[in-house]
Amino acid sequence: MTASEAPRRILIAVGGNAIHPGGITGTVDEQRALAARTGDALLPIMAGDNTLVITHGNGPVVGKILMRQAIARDRVAPMSLDICVAHSQGGIAYLLMQALENALRRRGNRRHVVCLLTQVEVDPDDPAFDDPTKPVGYFFDEAEAREVSRTLGWAMREDAGRGWRHVVPSPEPRHIVDISLVQAVIGSGAIAIAGGGGGIPVVRQADGTRRGIEAVIDKDLCSAHMARVLGLDVLMILTAVKHVAVHFGKPEARDLATVRASELRAFQREGHFAAGSMGPKVEAALRFVEGGGERAIIAHLDDAVAALAGETGTQVLPD
Amino acid sequence: MTASEAPRRILIAVGGNAIHPGGITGTVDEQRALAARTGDALLPIMAGDNTLVITHGNGPVVGKILMRQAIARDRVAPMSLDICVAHSQGGIAYLLMQALENALRRRGNRRHVVCLLTQVEVDPDDPAFDDPTKPVGYFFDEAEAREVSRTLGWAMREDAGRGWRHVVPSPEPRHIVDISLVQAVIGSGAIAIAGGGGGIPVVRQADGTRRGIEAVIDKDLCSAHMARVLGLDVLMILTAVKHVAVHFGKPEARDLATVRASELRAFQREGHFAAGSMGPKVEAALRFVEGGGERAIIAHLDDAVAALAGETGTQVLPD
Repeated sequence: MTASEAPRRILIAVGGNAIHPGGITGTVDEQRALAARTGDALLPIMAGDNTLVITHGNGPVVGKILMRQAIARDRVAPMSLDICVAHSQGGIAYLLMQALENALRRRGNRRHVVCLLTQVEVDPDDPAFDDPTKPVGYFFDEAEAREVSRTLGWAMREDAGRGWRHVVPSPEPRHIVDISLVQAVIGSGAIAIAGGGGGIPVVRQADGTRRGIEAVIDKDLCSAHMARVLGLDVLMILTAVKHVAVHFGKPEARDLATVRASELRAFQREGHFAAGSMGPKVEAALRFVEGGGERAIIAHLDDAVAALAGETGTQVLPD
Repeated sequence: MTASEAPRRILIAVGGNAIHPGGITGTVDEQRALAARTGDALLPIMAGDNTLVITHGNGPVVGKILMRQAIARDRVAPMSLDICVAHSQGGIAYLLMQALENALRRRGNRRHVVCLLTQVEVDPDDPAFDDPTKPVGYFFDEAEAREVSRTLGWAMREDAGRGWRHVVPSPEPRHIVDISLVQAVIGSGAIAIAGGGGGIPVVRQADGTRRGIEAVIDKDLCSAHMARVLGLDVLMILTAVKHVAVHFGKPEARDLATVRASELRAFQREGHFAAGSMGPKVEAALRFVEGGGERAIIAHLDDAVAALAGETGTQVLPD
């Protein structure tokens, strides 16, 4: 199994750190350099005849947007979180689209990479709305945290002595709006970037109209949902580690190479995967293969080609 | 001639104020209300069988983005202007897309509205780069202007006693990147939102790759270029006035109803149209009809349907 074998239908989910360094001081040049590296890592997959959808996280970028608007709150009216996510889709997908096309053009390949802004419907009765737990953005000190909570209405939570963070609900993705257009774009041969930052969170109202809601949808769960609806073969989640591990951080830690869905579910039930990091990636991989997907992969961004060829990363197969 | 006659191929350019009030204190609710009004104004055109591309300005939104990053500059790394434009495309197109679909859904119409992020190539040797003159964003006082100029490298210019503004180059749009995807989307029957804020300004390098550049492209000139490349019939520029006027602001002022291109060029040469306001709209209308377009219209947003039917607004026809 190699990347140059028969063309596949693939969704690749890259982390927010694939185009942005971790901190609020990440410069534009650093972002461009990271995006170029992502372009190089994905080039052999893009250059083949694979049908390709790319989703991306938005952590560092939406964090900067929120921090800027907190600091400027007395002079510039703040945006709701759905609009902040939309801004981050624009900014990230632009740099990613440019970097991916640049990698292709350097090899004389004219394939198009196009970005579709994506709204994702959630259920307004999702239990996540009763208990906002997903941290977004950067740390504030206590005085500042109280002030932004008072003036912007943000729920703030103390994080293990490191400072205070804005926490928001993270509801389940229920429906990807206008998914037929993503289908049309990939059907035309172009590579589609969609579902950035988990999608812009919206709810559908009784009259069929939609409205944004204050939430952040997990980008891996959104990616799994999108890959299933599009009927793709492979879901590949690229991150900063080479494998999923059980007993992570302990002496008996062990990387998972190829694993069946039921086996991975059992590890998940035993509590091997942390809620804020590997947990949603494992859940997304499981939903995809349990829902009919052929294979889910969790691997390091730099290993994308080898992981697609089955040579590295954690390969999740149906039972 | 009515909106319900034979389907047309139309590009509608709406101003940045079609989804955002003028000032930095414009709230999310005000934005939603304005976007909903735009949806209502365009509904009869969207609900027909017209092929439709919609472009939009980004003035108030990119102004807020720039102001927030100037205020937060000591703590959060700033973005380059191409990335700011990309953010504004995401935020504005999201609200517009949602409002236009909501207007359709309230009438039970299932037509899709989709947004494609759009890069537009400019010439790095464009003379505009030698003389930045386009003001972007809001006013700063002199001390602040000096400080953001020093720390962010912005060119700042005093504006007739009202304060200091950031000025940037406004080069000519030369090529709309991946325009074939806009063609594919409108060919599928969906309404495409593209070219927001004049497009994300980029230059093409010797090896065929692209890179962002610090500039803002005029959204009406970008719209005229896009409408010509797509071979559309009608370019409709919607704004806050009902007609183009000659001798504007003087006792002999006169609104233009139907005007031939050569006649409008003559008025333009006589200096009737102000550089920062009606000037680019008139130039865009002229380029479109001189380049083979059937008709250009400059009209008030609320008059969109009547203007398309030829009943109001300024109608620019080829000679």
